[in-house]
Amino acid sequence: LSQAPAKKTAVETEPRIRHLVSINDLSNDEIFSLFSEADRYLATLGDPVLGYRIASGLSIANGKIAASLFYEPSTRTRLSFETAMIRLGGQVITSADPQASSTSKGESLADTVRVVSNYADLIVLRHPRDGAARYASDFAHIPVINAGDGGHEHPTQTLCDLFTLTEEHKEFRNLNITISGDLKGSRTIHSLVYALARLGSKMRLLPAKGMELPANVERRLRNEFGGRTEADESAIGAWYITPDQPHQPALFTEPELPASSPVGDRVDAVYVTRYQKERHSDEGERDYPRVDKKFLKDPKYSKSSVLHPLPRVDELDTDLDTDRRAAYFRQAAYGVPVRMALIAMILGLDPAKRLRNFVGGFRDTGAIVIDQPEGAGLKCPNRNCISHDRSEKPHLRDKFTYVTYTPPVLRCFYCESDIDSFVIGDKRHRRIYTRQPKPATPRNLVCFTDEAQARQAGFSQA
Amino acid sequence: LSQAPAKKTAVETEPRIRHLVSINDLSNDEIFSLFSEADRYLATLGDPVLGYRIASGLSIANGKIAASLFYEPSTRTRLSFETAMIRLGGQVITSADPQASSTSKGESLADTVRVVSNYADLIVLRHPRDGAARYASDFAHIPVINAGDGGHEHPTQTLCDLFTLTEEHKEFRNLNITISGDLKGSRTIHSLVYALARLGSKMRLLPAKGMELPANVERRLRNEFGGRTEADESAIGAWYITPDQPHQPALFTEPELPASSPVGDRVDAVYVTRYQKERHSDEGERDYPRVDKKFLKDPKYSKSSVLHPLPRVDELDTDLDTDRRAAYFRQAAYGVPVRMALIAMILGLDPAKRLRNFVGGFRDTGAIVIDQPEGAGLKCPNRNCISHDRSEKPHLRDKFTYVTYTPPVLRCFYCESDIDSFVIGDKRHRRIYTRQPKPATPRNLVCFTDEAQARQAGFSQA
Amino acid sequence: LSQAPAKKTAVETEPRIRHLVSINDLSNDEIFSLFSEADRYLATLGDPVLGYRIASGLSIANGKIAASLFYEPSTRTRLSFETAMIRLGGQVITSADPQASSTSKGESLADTVRVVSNYADLIVLRHPRDGAARYASDFAHIPVINAGDGGHEHPTQTLCDLFTLTEEHKEFRNLNITISGDLKGSRTIHSLVYALARLGSKMRLLPAKGMELPANVERRLRNEFGGRTEADESAIGAWYITPDQPHQPALFTEPELPASSPVGDRVDAVYVTRYQKERHSDEGERDYPRVDKKFLKDPKYSKSSVLHPLPRVDELDTDLDTDRRAAYFRQAAYGVPVRMALIAMILGLDPAKRLRNFVGGFRDTGAIVIDQPEGAGLKCPNRNCISHDRSEKPHLRDKFTYVTYTPPVLRCFYCESDIDSFVIGDKRHRRIYTRQPKPATPRNLVCFTDEAQARQAGFSQA
Repeated sequence: LSQAPAKKTAVETEPRIRHLVSINDLSNDEIFSLFSEADRYLATLGDPVLGYRIASGLSIANGKIAASLFYEPSTRTRLSFETAMIRLGGQVITSADPQASSTSKGESLADTVRVVSNYADLIVLRHPRDGAARYASDFAHIPVINAGDGGHEHPTQTLCDLFTLTEEHKEFRNLNITISGDLKGSRTIHSLVYALARLGSKMRLLPAKGMELPANVERRLRNEFGGRTEADESAIGAWYITPDQPHQPALFTEPELPASSPVGDRVDAVYVTRYQKERHSDEGERDYPRVDKKFLKDPKYSKSSVLHPLPRVDELDTDLDTDRRAAYFRQAAYGVPVRMALIAMILGLDPAKRLRNFVGGFRDTGAIVIDQPEGAGLKCPNRNCISHDRSEKPHLRDKFTYVTYTPPVLRCFYCESDIDSFVIGDKRHRRIYTRQPKPATPRNLVCFTDEAQARQAGFSQA
Repeated sequence: LSQAPAKKTAVETEPRIRHLVSINDLSNDEIFSLFSEADRYLATLGDPVLGYRIASGLSIANGKIAASLFYEPSTRTRLSFETAMIRLGGQVITSADPQASSTSKGESLADTVRVVSNYADLIVLRHPRDGAARYASDFAHIPVINAGDGGHEHPTQTLCDLFTLTEEHKEFRNLNITISGDLKGSRTIHSLVYALARLGSKMRLLPAKGMELPANVERRLRNEFGGRTEADESAIGAWYITPDQPHQPALFTEPELPASSPVGDRVDAVYVTRYQKERHSDEGERDYPRVDKKFLKDPKYSKSSVLHPLPRVDELDTDLDTDRRAAYFRQAAYGVPVRMALIAMILGLDPAKRLRNFVGGFRDTGAIVIDQPEGAGLKCPNRNCISHDRSEKPHLRDKFTYVTYTPPVLRCFYCESDIDSFVIGDKRHRRIYTRQPKPATPRNLVCFTDEAQARQAGFSQA
Repeated sequence: LSQAPAKKTAVETEPRIRHLVSINDLSNDEIFSLFSEADRYLATLGDPVLGYRIASGLSIANGKIAASLFYEPSTRTRLSFETAMIRLGGQVITSADPQASSTSKGESLADTVRVVSNYADLIVLRHPRDGAARYASDFAHIPVINAGDGGHEHPTQTLCDLFTLTEEHKEFRNLNITISGDLKGSRTIHSLVYALARLGSKMRLLPAKGMELPANVERRLRNEFGGRTEADESAIGAWYITPDQPHQPALFTEPELPASSPVGDRVDAVYVTRYQKERHSDEGERDYPRVDKKFLKDPKYSKSSVLHPLPRVDELDTDLDTDRRAAYFRQAAYGVPVRMALIAMILGLDPAKRLRNFVGGFRDTGAIVIDQPEGAGLKCPNRNCISHDRSEKPHLRDKFTYVTYTPPVLRCFYCESDIDSFVIGDKRHRRIYTRQPKPATPRNLVCFTDEAQARQAGFSQA
């Protein structure tokens, strides 16, 4: 029970530190404020197409240090964060190779983050485990920015994607966007679809075979962000389709929509992703949708901008590089001003525009979080969740958010995997809970996989 | 045909960006201007022998960022570039380990360079493939400096070598220099012999057995830089010898020269190189020439300065470290001021001394370059050329420079390997070309390995 | 005989460069001066518990460069040095991965250090070989700081440890400290026990089975730093116990001390270390002492501060993280101000407080050092000593300090392993030496393992 991070209480009396772990940590208003700052920084950088030409660096981050902690390979993301920090006038310390770090001596992420909190002003973290960034933010005294955590989220990529869309198309509301490729393994896509749904854009999904959007993510789109499927013509705001038959290669052109479809026959943007081979155990790269000049010949794509988070492999033809619809190199270039704005706001470099001034986050902060006693019943079902990392065991307690769906579900606090079937017990009376828990009660609660497990732990029906 | 880099046209309307891929990208005048700048920077640094003592850093590069992209191991070269950038007041972003970069996800060099062009102001690239730097410069919006590309060239090492020679001996004209070791695998040597020939120095080559200067390089020395062999006593300017019998260990003392030899009996400098084991598949380190006190006992070496690009293994005896002729630690120390001068000039930090003000390059910019249609006949014969890299295939087209030797040869645009036997076709008339192509015609040209290949592609004799 | 580093003589006419290789390179006065500077820097950084909040960076190190050369994994140590340098206003160049450096081409540490001496103003070195830092300092023109050399020493960790103790307890004299864990493989412990003994603290050792303090280190404590064992009740100053029976799990609580014991029944601090698996070939992690709430329940620990150099594995329970006695996260945080003070003093950034103004070092600089002729008899018995590194052979000569114990011992100049049995010869008369050598004689001396080896080399009894 005393495994909480040292001095956490002291920290919590400070003005609240803001982290960026999920795109849902930012409200829509915060995203737009960030873009207006990014626009200002973009103007200082010059033209991203011709290469930025900087008259002289800024000094707003003088004396500040960002720590890049990268436990997974990266060039673009790491270098663009470091560039952003330097362009603001700050400095960087880097641990880019997990093999050359103390991790090889068995050090936990929790301890690393606590120690680095005393060196730097900001941590930028990439990690192969889902939920690692949320977990790290529990131990940090300084802001943590998630630069990709396993297959979970990659919110700063989404900020760059959204910034590109707003530069190309101005409006998100009713923007029609096709999203193709590995919708299952791509953390980038998970962050993106939440944001697009919240902003009222309309998505058509074009997954590779067996790489559909995870059921968890799809349900959140419907239940939390107003998503509707094609059949539901009364849809307001966000709207998306899920293919209703298994994919075959011939189906990689999009299905025809009825004239009455709210999507219409114009596609504003096509978002392409590579096969995330590091997230899959099989060799499933066959029948992967490929976007090339032939694909884009259809008149509905005549004004589509083409986005890709890069790196690409074969799914996006280099023939398109000189096509006026190709936005992906601009999208990569926007990484610098967008990350400059994020760093400046999260560090509060301009007191008038610091993130913690804002109302704060799309995420429901009133949600009930059940902090499991050590060794207690329910575990996160996602084996790649940080909660299953052996090095973190001594530091970590399983935590679940109680989500008031009908029926309710438990959501892993770290990796946000949902659990449909569970039982909650009240530690005071050793009783199995039957009603919805109240905000005042979580200290007394404990979760079990089922009644049998609860009974074995000495809990009984009321 | 549309695989050219995005926005290339837009870039080309800008003032020309200068890259440093080959030592021949710099004219002799540019090299001397660079050395005069390096001398100025050297004065700010203090004494390279006692370690530099810097009163305070410069600020000429404030706000500028250099990206170190190193796809091959390096300490000295990378750290000396980074030091140079920092000493000028600039900053560095680094990708030092190919395993920790996006390359492990299959990203192409072309895309990496395009993206990093939007982060940094300058790219310093080391790559295991011959021709990688020229190829990268095709995709960059910012200057690319070649810090070593496979076995091709290493021009900044040559700048340090030449700067050392000028500090030690003042004049290049008629300077007698012995070059020993692995003349085949050492990219450093290739850059060096071109420069020395152009500057009128006289070289005696002392290769290890089977590690003679590549035939390509030797022919260029003769045909383009006025090289002559020993027998040719009327030689003016550059002069070099190739040993005419197979090497045996006992022959590692240099052959006696006739009294009438234009070289004379004084050797001004001995340049030693290590066996480049990473460039050879066999274990051929036996019978490797070794420079030690015994070797240098010969009176003709009594005033020779001894150079080595480092790292050394066994070919240069540590006994020499305290010998007054040893120049190799000074040579390493000069890496900082020379690279400071290069960075300052290539970035145009002092508008009066920016490289693009100069006439520009020794390389013949009027040469005809034939840009092969995708999939067409002739390929570069060098299997280590970047044009054979699988990741680059979608981005790359084979390109050949038509070199007007008698008879003419084709030279790979990237790795500069020469092809003696080939056939050129004219795409308009599907005819095999018999005359020398004109500058106006390259768009219509395509190269084949031989007539049979051309005929198979539907081309016939005129 | 001429293998000494190039230009060494020139360097030696300069004001003496100070290195920090062993904690014994600093006098007690220097340590206290350094702590007073660290206190000043700590005040500029803010509260280490809440994370440092820096108003603006310092500029005292503007234009200076530190080179991090790390040949072993590290996160904390490297990043804290780099942070310290940056917080002072300086810059960093980093080689963090031995696989991505020139070492993989066979470059020696000696050459690397000589070359990097011309790039940077300071070298921070971590190396897997014992004695590597002392060896490197022989070739550097700039200060070398040992950031851990094999199992030998880690003096800057000790500075952080001591600084933590002084912040928590004010006085070192008669401070009672328990030291538990792997006292054999932990370089941190070796530096620490020397310092604590010198400063008059009283240590109780609680090693894991088979991981007792090395006999060498224990003897130095007795012979050079006034160490006494428990039985010796007249002990003044430093005092320590060695367990006199083999450890069994049940003995991991400390042995009861007699009421008359000079230690008393209060323990001021408990210093815990992890099992150094990289320093042991076996799998001996069983029966390892573990410090947790239960261990600390004993009233004698009621006011003990708990220190750990981190990373920890299982030997320090995370339950303690919120215990008020836990000092280990503060200890890690102090790494920044302590290293800031060290860098500032070793670079002489404030001329009034530069290290080379001080009397200089606890180490006896009048000791006789015997510089072995190449290939001569005696070698260091420690197989992990840098003197056995194949890459260094051409640069290195075995050197031994003649230590005037009764009977005298030879101590490896690099790794400080002691040799009890040896024979010294006089090269002038080819005689075996029988008396104590005089400071004037070391040039003529040569060491052998025994008389037989000396005779074989042509030396005879006088």
